[in-house]
Amino acid sequence: MEQPPAQSSPWNDTPWNKTRIASLLGIEYPIIQGPLGGLSTQRLTATVSNFGGLGSFGAHGLSPSAIKDVIAEIRALTSNPFAINLWVSMEDEGARTSGSEAFSRSLAPLAGHIQSLGGALPDYKRYAPVKFEDQARILLDAKVPVFSFVVGIPPREILDECRAQRIITIGTATTPDEAIALEQAGVDAVVASGFEAGGHRGSFLLPAEESLTGTFSLVPQVADVVSIPVIAAGGIGDARGVVAAFALGAEGVQIGTAFLATEESGAGALHRNAILSSRARRTSLTRGFTGRLARGIHNQLVAELNRPGVEILPYPLQRHLLKNLTTLAEQAANPELLQLWAGQSAGLARHRDAPAFLETLVAEVSAIASPVLDWNRDRTRSLPAEAAR
Amino acid sequence: MEQPPAQSSPWNDTPWNKTRIASLLGIEYPIIQGPLGGLSTQRLTATVSNFGGLGSFGAHGLSPSAIKDVIAEIRALTSNPFAINLWVSMEDEGARTSGSEAFSRSLAPLAGHIQSLGGALPDYKRYAPVKFEDQARILLDAKVPVFSFVVGIPPREILDECRAQRIITIGTATTPDEAIALEQAGVDAVVASGFEAGGHRGSFLLPAEESLTGTFSLVPQVADVVSIPVIAAGGIGDARGVVAAFALGAEGVQIGTAFLATEESGAGALHRNAILSSRARRTSLTRGFTGRLARGIHNQLVAELNRPGVEILPYPLQRHLLKNLTTLAEQAANPELLQLWAGQSAGLARHRDAPAFLETLVAEVSAIASPVLDWNRDRTRSLPAEAAR
Repeated sequence: MEQPPAQSSPWNDTPWNKTRIASLLGIEYPIIQGPLGGLSTQRLTATVSNFGGLGSFGAHGLSPSAIKDVIAEIRALTSNPFAINLWVSMEDEGARTSGSEAFSRSLAPLAGHIQSLGGALPDYKRYAPVKFEDQARILLDAKVPVFSFVVGIPPREILDECRAQRIITIGTATTPDEAIALEQAGVDAVVASGFEAGGHRGSFLLPAEESLTGTFSLVPQVADVVSIPVIAAGGIGDARGVVAAFALGAEGVQIGTAFLATEESGAGALHRNAILSSRARRTSLTRGFTGRLARGIHNQLVAELNRPGVEILPYPLQRHLLKNLTTLAEQAANPELLQLWAGQSAGLARHRDAPAFLETLVAEVSAIASPVLDWNRDRTRSLPAEAAR
Repeated sequence: MEQPPAQSSPWNDTPWNKTRIASLLGIEYPIIQGPLGGLSTQRLTATVSNFGGLGSFGAHGLSPSAIKDVIAEIRALTSNPFAINLWVSMEDEGARTSGSEAFSRSLAPLAGHIQSLGGALPDYKRYAPVKFEDQARILLDAKVPVFSFVVGIPPREILDECRAQRIITIGTATTPDEAIALEQAGVDAVVASGFEAGGHRGSFLLPAEESLTGTFSLVPQVADVVSIPVIAAGGIGDARGVVAAFALGAEGVQIGTAFLATEESGAGALHRNAILSSRARRTSLTRGFTGRLARGIHNQLVAELNRPGVEILPYPLQRHLLKNLTTLAEQAANPELLQLWAGQSAGLARHRDAPAFLETLVAEVSAIASPVLDWNRDRTRSLPAEAAR
């Protein structure tokens, strides 16, 4: 793959892309593809890694044996570093005790749609949990290059084993306090994930609703309280966002929605078209899609599930329930009843081809990033000692 | 006042501070002090304007005759341009029909606090509206240099008179659609006010809760859809935020909370100290302070008013109601029962002196802003025509 040259600053001989994040991960550009949950593909992950960024694969929805296969498939497509992303917390309180009555109450607002799309109403099924520890075991045994995670901090023994195996760990913080907790646990780098981000909020110290910090506020405040490198996420859709993230103190960026819009992603055509259309201008947070707070393009489904009085099952039961509707809506090509995951910068997405997006991004960022990074580094050095409170 | 020199870029001879915003407003630095509602002071406004930024005074809570006095007082302190800020919409639906029973229900959660602070419970009083048009008349007659506003678009005849009088108008948008509406109405510049911002949300096309866009996403998307200059607001607390705002496409910044923390502001000592303390790390949105959605430091008062079932009076009745408590809490030096207005970057505030803050800001920004602005300008010029959708 042809890569644009990384230009150095007129002020400094360090190329812009050689941040601590790039060195830590062993990648050419400090650009990380967001893990995209169930919409990851081995192809997209490998494409980003082959370009010189870090491709990620969101594996939280997969069984341990399926994760093993995915890792092998990615390795067949790239010899560069990549990340597998898991969710440390795999269920919310009440998931194991929620019964058929709660199921019926939460099915009620969906039932009409399911039936009008020609579907049969699903029966209540007992929940079969998947354990984070069993999934993590696969990552450790496979010695994945990078293990990234959200919604918590893995148990100490897992982090110890990562260090022993030289698996780089990346945690996710939605508040400065979460970033401090991740650093104290010995995690190698932290994603500062702002309110703008698409998909699920990764909050774990306070409820997600009480941890909604915009990227603009989150990145500098996280950079001020941790010494591990910070990766900005949430609202980064083009070169402007990458440069702004560097100005705010990040040493890398994580981009989700713009990759979701490309043909390499696992998003369906309706979903990709919605991201690239003007309807992407409005997104909403909802617990209605899965039981956990997440962001998607505002449509009829979000509006209905966010109505007062609508009962939402605990994660992941609501996610399983919704599948009964969204599978039919996909077949019927009705985007109003789909989960159109997207962040607030969906409106900036322009590319249907992941390498073309990356080439444009790197070319544009190269023209300015070096002096911005140097400026931020010099600024931090010259600050009085009281800076981090 | 001694001002740091504005350095020019090594790549370009244009000094960084000569953006379209600076030229339009006739100011030295494209830095605007947020209007701070009832916590404005003539002194702070004049201090910022004398430094070469644009001081603003939030006058929406004042009678027309009080506004007239304020303008004269500011003019006695500075001969530089300044802004007076008004709220186009001065009341919410139901404010004129809300009666004594609703008053009693909304007083209930505050009553215990008022009594335990030694206060007498207030009686219901009929609401005496203040009209935006009467306030705006004063600004027009006084020919203020800049007329900024939130929560709507002034009637066409007022905007026409501003143009005729050469009064510069600045509107506030919380979504790209609001920015388009402001530009179409002929407003001279637009503040893109992100989710992170302290104080009230200025939304006017959709309810504020449905218009919460992070600054990181809002600024580039507004810059893509309007051709008038964009001022970034929300989460800008230090030089990093200014540079990031320029990277995202803004040509000026509006900073509120960092100025609120200075001794020149009208905030009380408890409020200023709270902004400069670690408690500022957590802020919340609430309608409980005034009836309209606004952001402040999370404390007991916010938590209690945000409880489900608590009835909130329509704006501005809830604001008048709260005064009965907050006046007592101020006397009792209890910050848990005060309205501690602040944005999400309160944790970045470091200065108690407004000129010292401005000097640091300009010195730091000067070292990098010029190439960032040039980069953004060149990038925009080279984009294909489809860029703005």
